[in-house]
Amino acid sequence: MRRKLKLEELNRLTPEEFRHSEKIPLIFILDNIRSGLNVGSAFRTADAFGIRKMYLCGITAQPPHREILKTAIGANESIEWVYVKDIVSLCERLKADGYFLIGLEQTEDSRNLLSYDFPLDREVALVFGNEVEGISVEILEYLDQVLEIPQYGTKHSLNVSVSIGIASAFYRQQWDQK
Amino acid sequence: MRRKLKLEELNRLTPEEFRHSEKIPLIFILDNIRSGLNVGSAFRTADAFGIRKMYLCGITAQPPHREILKTAIGANESIEWVYVKDIVSLCERLKADGYFLIGLEQTEDSRNLLSYDFPLDREVALVFGNEVEGISVEILEYLDQVLEIPQYGTKHSLNVSVSIGIASAFYRQQWDQK
Repeated sequence: MRRKLKLEELNRLTPEEFRHSEKIPLIFILDNIRSGLNVGSAFRTADAFGIRKMYLCGITAQPPHREILKTAIGANESIEWVYVKDIVSLCERLKADGYFLIGLEQTEDSRNLLSYDFPLDREVALVFGNEVEGISVEILEYLDQVLEIPQYGTKHSLNVSVSIGIASAFYRQQWDQK
Repeated sequence: MRRKLKLEELNRLTPEEFRHSEKIPLIFILDNIRSGLNVGSAFRTADAFGIRKMYLCGITAQPPHREILKTAIGANESIEWVYVKDIVSLCERLKADGYFLIGLEQTEDSRNLLSYDFPLDREVALVFGNEVEGISVEILEYLDQVLEIPQYGTKHSLNVSVSIGIASAFYRQQWDQK
């Protein structure tokens, strides 16, 4: 008979252990993500894949927030996060600090995320935009790379929390296999 | 200057075109997924990756449903779906029809999704379970393979709609590259 693993067999970290654990060199920048449910899900994904930090920018919902708590189920306690109102100045600063900025968006020069090799020797910031408008136009020029998730159906885009999960899973796969 | 693509440049299909388009040999089985938001997101992901069909089982929320409409944003019109109350009989029937059943769950014998090669010569059903309880215990033995998404943080699991997105993106990547 096949048996599910018990919670204690999963060897998850405590929030305190997580804060002092080694992270992958990846951060998220949430650019005007309005829905607390999406922000909470981003926290939970960030926790799962062990990313270093999240920046919440512009109108992005911030903890404490009922919707964030509902989908983060506490991951906002483990992940380091900072609110920065002005995403342009944040992008300028991160680029000056040597970060490689990757945005999820559909642009003339966007590449397919599913066949992209992440620069594993750099610190990488993944930028995710508003549920309707996508990434703010004024930061498109700061991005070193734009990636899109190929789509074969009728809709414009995926749910942003799903896109965050897919992008970080592909990064994590490459990090684990390097 | 970098330019975003306009909606009409994305070459998305109409729901009518989608229904008659060739799909990948992948279906979803939603096993007691309570939240309409998660079911709607599954529809949107299914549409994006061009999967063939969705089975909604047990207590899984069904259209029409306010929460489903909120996250599916119409993808429930393009994707063929069927409600089947009894997931055990569905799994028996699909196996008899030659389907390869893969569940997302943490079991003693689960393998890492991020390094898994999907059987691209088979019709594949991906089974996703309840937000809290995971996959129903009574169908574990019907699964040909159990996959888990490796996690490095403090939480038990990812949001199920994020797991659906990650699993189907990895399948789609392998399908596109075969």
